Amino acid sequence: MLGSGFIGRFYAEAIHGQRGRDRVVAVYARSEANAKKFAADYGCPIWSTEMEDIVSNPEVTMVCIALPNNKHEEAVRLCAKHHKNVVCTKPLGRNAEEAYTMMKLVEDAGIFAGYLEDLCYTPKFIKALAMVKNGSLGRILWAKSRETHPGPHSDWFWDKEQAGGGCMLDLGCHCVEIARNYIGKDIKPVRAFCWAATQAKPIEAEDHAIALIEYENGAIGQFETSWSFRGGMDLRDEVMGTEGTIWINSFLRTGFEAYTSGKGGDYISEKAESNSGWLFPVGDEVNELGYNHMFTDMFSAAEEGRAPEETFYDGYVVNAILDACYKSAESGKWEPVDLKIWKGQTGLQKISGYQDYDTDHYFIKEEVTHDGRHKIILKQKAGGKIIERDIQKT
Amino acid sequence: MLGSGFIGRFYAEAIHGQRGRDRVVAVYARSEANAKKFAADYGCPIWSTEMEDIVSNPEVTMVCIALPNNKHEEAVRLCAKHHKNVVCTKPLGRNAEEAYTMMKLVEDAGIFAGYLEDLCYTPKFIKALAMVKNGSLGRILWAKSRETHPGPHSDWFWDKEQAGGGCMLDLGCHCVEIARNYIGKDIKPVRAFCWAATQAKPIEAEDHAIALIEYENGAIGQFETSWSFRGGMDLRDEVMGTEGTIWINSFLRTGFEAYTSGKGGDYISEKAESNSGWLFPVGDEVNELGYNHMFTDMFSAAEEGRAPEETFYDGYVVNAILDACYKSAESGKWEPVDLKIWKGQTGLQKISGYQDYDTDHYFIKEEVTHDGRHKIILKQKAGGKIIERDIQKT
Amino acid sequence: MLGSGFIGRFYAEAIHGQRGRDRVVAVYARSEANAKKFAADYGCPIWSTEMEDIVSNPEVTMVCIALPNNKHEEAVRLCAKHHKNVVCTKPLGRNAEEAYTMMKLVEDAGIFAGYLEDLCYTPKFIKALAMVKNGSLGRILWAKSRETHPGPHSDWFWDKEQAGGGCMLDLGCHCVEIARNYIGKDIKPVRAFCWAATQAKPIEAEDHAIALIEYENGAIGQFETSWSFRGGMDLRDEVMGTEGTIWINSFLRTGFEAYTSGKGGDYISEKAESNSGWLFPVGDEVNELGYNHMFTDMFSAAEEGRAPEETFYDGYVVNAILDACYKSAESGKWEPVDLKIWKGQTGLQKISGYQDYDTDHYFIKEEVTHDGRHKIILKQKAGGKIIERDIQKT
Amino acid sequence: MLGSGFIGRFYAEAIHGQRGRDRVVAVYARSEANAKKFAADYGCPIWSTEMEDIVSNPEVTMVCIALPNNKHEEAVRLCAKHHKNVVCTKPLGRNAEEAYTMMKLVEDAGIFAGYLEDLCYTPKFIKALAMVKNGSLGRILWAKSRETHPGPHSDWFWDKEQAGGGCMLDLGCHCVEIARNYIGKDIKPVRAFCWAATQAKPIEAEDHAIALIEYENGAIGQFETSWSFRGGMDLRDEVMGTEGTIWINSFLRTGFEAYTSGKGGDYISEKAESNSGWLFPVGDEVNELGYNHMFTDMFSAAEEGRAPEETFYDGYVVNAILDACYKSAESGKWEPVDLKIWKGQTGLQKISGYQDYDTDHYFIKEEVTHDGRHKIILKQKAGGKIIERDIQKT
Repeated sequence: MLGSGFIGRFYAEAIHGQRGRDRVVAVYARSEANAKKFAADYGCPIWSTEMEDIVSNPEVTMVCIALPNNKHEEAVRLCAKHHKNVVCTKPLGRNAEEAYTMMKLVEDAGIFAGYLEDLCYTPKFIKALAMVKNGSLGRILWAKSRETHPGPHSDWFWDKEQAGGGCMLDLGCHCVEIARNYIGKDIKPVRAFCWAATQAKPIEAEDHAIALIEYENGAIGQFETSWSFRGGMDLRDEVMGTEGTIWINSFLRTGFEAYTSGKGGDYISEKAESNSGWLFPVGDEVNELGYNHMFTDMFSAAEEGRAPEETFYDGYVVNAILDACYKSAESGKWEPVDLKIWKGQTGLQKISGYQDYDTDHYFIKEEVTHDGRHKIILKQKAGGKIIERDIQKT
Repeated sequence: MLGSGFIGRFYAEAIHGQRGRDRVVAVYARSEANAKKFAADYGCPIWSTEMEDIVSNPEVTMVCIALPNNKHEEAVRLCAKHHKNVVCTKPLGRNAEEAYTMMKLVEDAGIFAGYLEDLCYTPKFIKALAMVKNGSLGRILWAKSRETHPGPHSDWFWDKEQAGGGCMLDLGCHCVEIARNYIGKDIKPVRAFCWAATQAKPIEAEDHAIALIEYENGAIGQFETSWSFRGGMDLRDEVMGTEGTIWINSFLRTGFEAYTSGKGGDYISEKAESNSGWLFPVGDEVNELGYNHMFTDMFSAAEEGRAPEETFYDGYVVNAILDACYKSAESGKWEPVDLKIWKGQTGLQKISGYQDYDTDHYFIKEEVTHDGRHKIILKQKAGGKIIERDIQKT
Repeated sequence: MLGSGFIGRFYAEAIHGQRGRDRVVAVYARSEANAKKFAADYGCPIWSTEMEDIVSNPEVTMVCIALPNNKHEEAVRLCAKHHKNVVCTKPLGRNAEEAYTMMKLVEDAGIFAGYLEDLCYTPKFIKALAMVKNGSLGRILWAKSRETHPGPHSDWFWDKEQAGGGCMLDLGCHCVEIARNYIGKDIKPVRAFCWAATQAKPIEAEDHAIALIEYENGAIGQFETSWSFRGGMDLRDEVMGTEGTIWINSFLRTGFEAYTSGKGGDYISEKAESNSGWLFPVGDEVNELGYNHMFTDMFSAAEEGRAPEETFYDGYVVNAILDACYKSAESGKWEPVDLKIWKGQTGLQKISGYQDYDTDHYFIKEEVTHDGRHKIILKQKAGGKIIERDIQKT
Repeated sequence: MLGSGFIGRFYAEAIHGQRGRDRVVAVYARSEANAKKFAADYGCPIWSTEMEDIVSNPEVTMVCIALPNNKHEEAVRLCAKHHKNVVCTKPLGRNAEEAYTMMKLVEDAGIFAGYLEDLCYTPKFIKALAMVKNGSLGRILWAKSRETHPGPHSDWFWDKEQAGGGCMLDLGCHCVEIARNYIGKDIKPVRAFCWAATQAKPIEAEDHAIALIEYENGAIGQFETSWSFRGGMDLRDEVMGTEGTIWINSFLRTGFEAYTSGKGGDYISEKAESNSGWLFPVGDEVNELGYNHMFTDMFSAAEEGRAPEETFYDGYVVNAILDACYKSAESGKWEPVDLKIWKGQTGLQKISGYQDYDTDHYFIKEEVTHDGRHKIILKQKAGGKIIERDIQKT
């Protein structure tokens, strides 16, 4: 484990959780105190303040990068050098260039590399994606992901140099990959439009950003990210297809509601903004946020010699999309997504909604009205006139 | 009542509803059959297929326009000519030019004119707006409104010439005015960005549109509109402020849930896409959609000689914003909102989030962590470095 | 209006609400100050501290009783004496004997009498009842109503002599009538079982009570009432039928959610236990609690010479059921519901669930399993053996 | 694994799930076909149609009983004979006598024994129980658990002889233990009242049952169970304390909502009653239902030589409570809970709600009213009069 902070601890808990057979055997942290504390907390026999010591240690078969964004490339370079399998936290790079370099490093070294995009492994997401893939929603028209909360836990996130960006890079990387999955990872993201602003925090980077990403088949991805949301962590996906809809709420409304006067216990629940009134805890945070299913995929993929669901290539595509978003936030117009490598489909057309009703008409809508009429709205093929017609319900 | 269709019937039910003292006394419809049927259904003594007959009838003290969009201007012109108070359904015009003409007509004639923006009168909206105004949410950063459903009831909506646009004009007019209210009607909308597409229906106009509207103080409005949503009518507002959040669900999740095998009754509930499985009816649709509170304001305002909450001027501002959205959907960049008349504040600056913590630091974030630390993140005024600090909780 | 307290004010607001044509013209209160204040607030020309003055005043065409429970009978007696139409708040009496007397008084006097059971007039209840009546739920098996909150507003509620009971009489009267409606008002309540206790308040009456009421056709009613619930007012109905389910949440989860740090405004929302954190306001309380639809029915029924949906007879049946509940809470066993008069069906049998599958089997259950089997469970008519069988899905 | 049916498969999936280190090595089933299929599906090297073969096999270190209720005792007897650790599905016995025998068998044999009460291991339950234990809800007044669905999967459940009862035994065993945990496992259950009926299914046992269980300290447990509920599986807990409330929805409303026209895929989601309309899938069923956390506790407890959270003694107490419920359903009155062994506290008094306000008054309620009054309701210690008083808010 490279890094002993908030996310490193979450990862360790997921890996050690339940009756897991995997173990964190070594930890690197910049400060000796942190390294020792982490080692003690999770029973790691090995710790060091030198990253290369840990990466090169023969006990280590898989390196897990849980470092600030500006340290990812260096860590990946060491893994490539020492031929160690590697999994890296999100975002992969601070920009597409860094991500591309990392992708190339692992490809050239021929090592296993996984992109720790946990929100594409939440139990709800996995089942929702299965529904999308089996056709329950028809053709996907729009996929939105929203992640907003009152701001990250550690100082380095708030520093543009170390983090590489603000809430858009930090949270938008999740949202972009979620929408890509729903729309189809083989559908090319073509262009992006973005609004970003620093509305509420005394920082250089954006604390609020909204973007649209258009795909080659006409589908649209959307994200909403903020570090100035009040009320907890708002984590929601919404998907629209021609045949259905999915709404997922992963954190603030999951079927667990509690009211407390605050007179009782002291500590109530993590990330809640208050410890009295109505609270909305999450049962099993590590599982609900996807960590269990993610590491299961990563370790199993490495054992089985296959690629994991989320690869460094995916991390690179995400960074390329976010680069286009940052450019658009500056230019005020759609910016193309610049992909040096594209492995999916190409040359798709935007799909039209023309659906035959009969030889003379296109179908628009069918409806039962208040007063019991069964009504149909059609478009005449010749001339394009829109007409209404009552039909007999069988 | 000018118009005997879906919306005219909803209006009549709201006006006659409960123990109301107001009555629809006359109705105009293009077809005699429709006029007679409406007159019979709502006990109107007077009906005609000539609009001017109804407007000029001395029994009529207030004209209610419930006509297709391309007939609003003509109807308003008749009201001005005959000096009749008028209330007009949404959107006011098909574009800002039409809306401006209507606004001028009623101003010059000195008649009462109300804009029937019902979704700014729903019980939830009224209370939410009161919370916003009393400061419960602090400074408003973002206000989103979403209205999507499987498409409108009548043929003319689907015809661009009569309707003036697609789902964006039809539904976006609500959303724009909702966001304006939350952000402040006196805050100037400066520019708009919009994506619009015809994804699923065989029509010329857009069936899906998403837009951002930037206000002079840096607040951002957002809307999501569609005629290709599946699952019913999705009607939600979300507001973010520096001190709080509001989420309103006005239709599909209002605390009423029903499951039925479909073996029982035949007709289940209006607008539901199916009559079996889980259904989400609305208790009192007319009230929940704001019709009652809207007409109470309109009739009372006319009696009291004051302006209603929603005026033709508001309708004009909405059309001007939507014009900018349509322009942006074409140009692919932010377009300025062109307002011939602006009655609100001007010259506002975007507000910064710099908030003093002490003489040397700006405040970023305060938090209680897993392990019970009470932590604060600050920015040094000199140099801008971001630091973390543990503090003693009192 | 007899009474100027909390409920009298709610009633006046409902009657005067929107564009209502009815007016509160006179008010009685024990204290002159309260009578004057109410008269000023609601524009009543007439006030008095003598109840009979108000009842007998010729301007008064309908008397509305909004008094403590121990004053209902006296007020009804005056209405009978002066031949005035009367509507009375809930519960009708402190017990069945009082309620019976009141019912007899109005019957003998031949005056209109309505029972102000507002929760049988909420918009959600009205629509849910329509679904039940059109068969969407099949045969009703169970109907539960829950009303719990942190306790009533006025001192007299907490005094057993004036109130006649505790939370069970105060809130259970609603719940009992709600369940009666769903199960069918013509189905005879046969016996009741009740647990009641004083768990958290220093009072003589119960502050928590749960009961079951069995009906002649085997359906079961249930209520849960408390004055020691924390978190606001919990107002929910649940209904189970052979073909469906209804869940109504009338107050705490109605699609309106707000978070506030509390730094903004001071007063936030009525009945909320706090003014910060997550709050769940109700849009239009008067309408959501049924007051509008209730008075519309009452005034219209009186005008049309018909009985309202909720009559003094219904109030009497409710009191008789609650008397059985109180008796059961003492005796620890089922107690019969003692009805001097029963106007509904009699002699019903408990319905059995035996449903033919084919000539040799009864149907138990049909199901699609994980692994795609389409399975059916049956009972052999001869011998009663339960068997499983795979069937072909068509 | 003894048993290869629905629940045995669920257990195997939980044990093998994620990166688990435990393995099902042997399986017993009555039919050879089922034993072989299970062995193939879960990679068990050993299978048999002789129970003792499996229990006595030296590869087996822990026996997991997933058999019909009437086979539990026999299986436990074999475990005792062969000195094998054992975990047994719920309910432990068909009645307290059987459960007592099993408890004695494992005690006498000195083997590890765990009671597989999965719903006391769901992530939501674990966190909720922690909140209760840290005092967030104050003193617990009432704990309800509801489990209702359209009926079990296998034929033997519907046969009273094999199952030992109907929905009450099948589902009530969960509910009883959930409430016991919230109220405190060391608080003695004193008496039970129960209504049970066969309303909708052609079976001898009950298909709907509701009960109240009174504890020595005055707290009340409640359960609602049914095999005739429509709409899916309704799995909810509600807890009321003097300082707070908890509501848990474990299955039908967990933040995952999907609408589908049904035109897309064929199979949608397990246990859903339909494959179109609004569906409410659960993300990770095995985890949400508690299986992961349960087996983690069981295996870890066995390794560490400690008792698991849920023991055979707990299973016995649950059976004793359900026996009292069955007796009460017959007798129509409260029945004492007959416990041969009680390991918790004894001699507790019902707690009163008398709380001093000042030397002369007890506190009843504090409230802010509509009109901004800050009001307090008190009871005079001398005389017991209830009074209201306005106070100054500080």
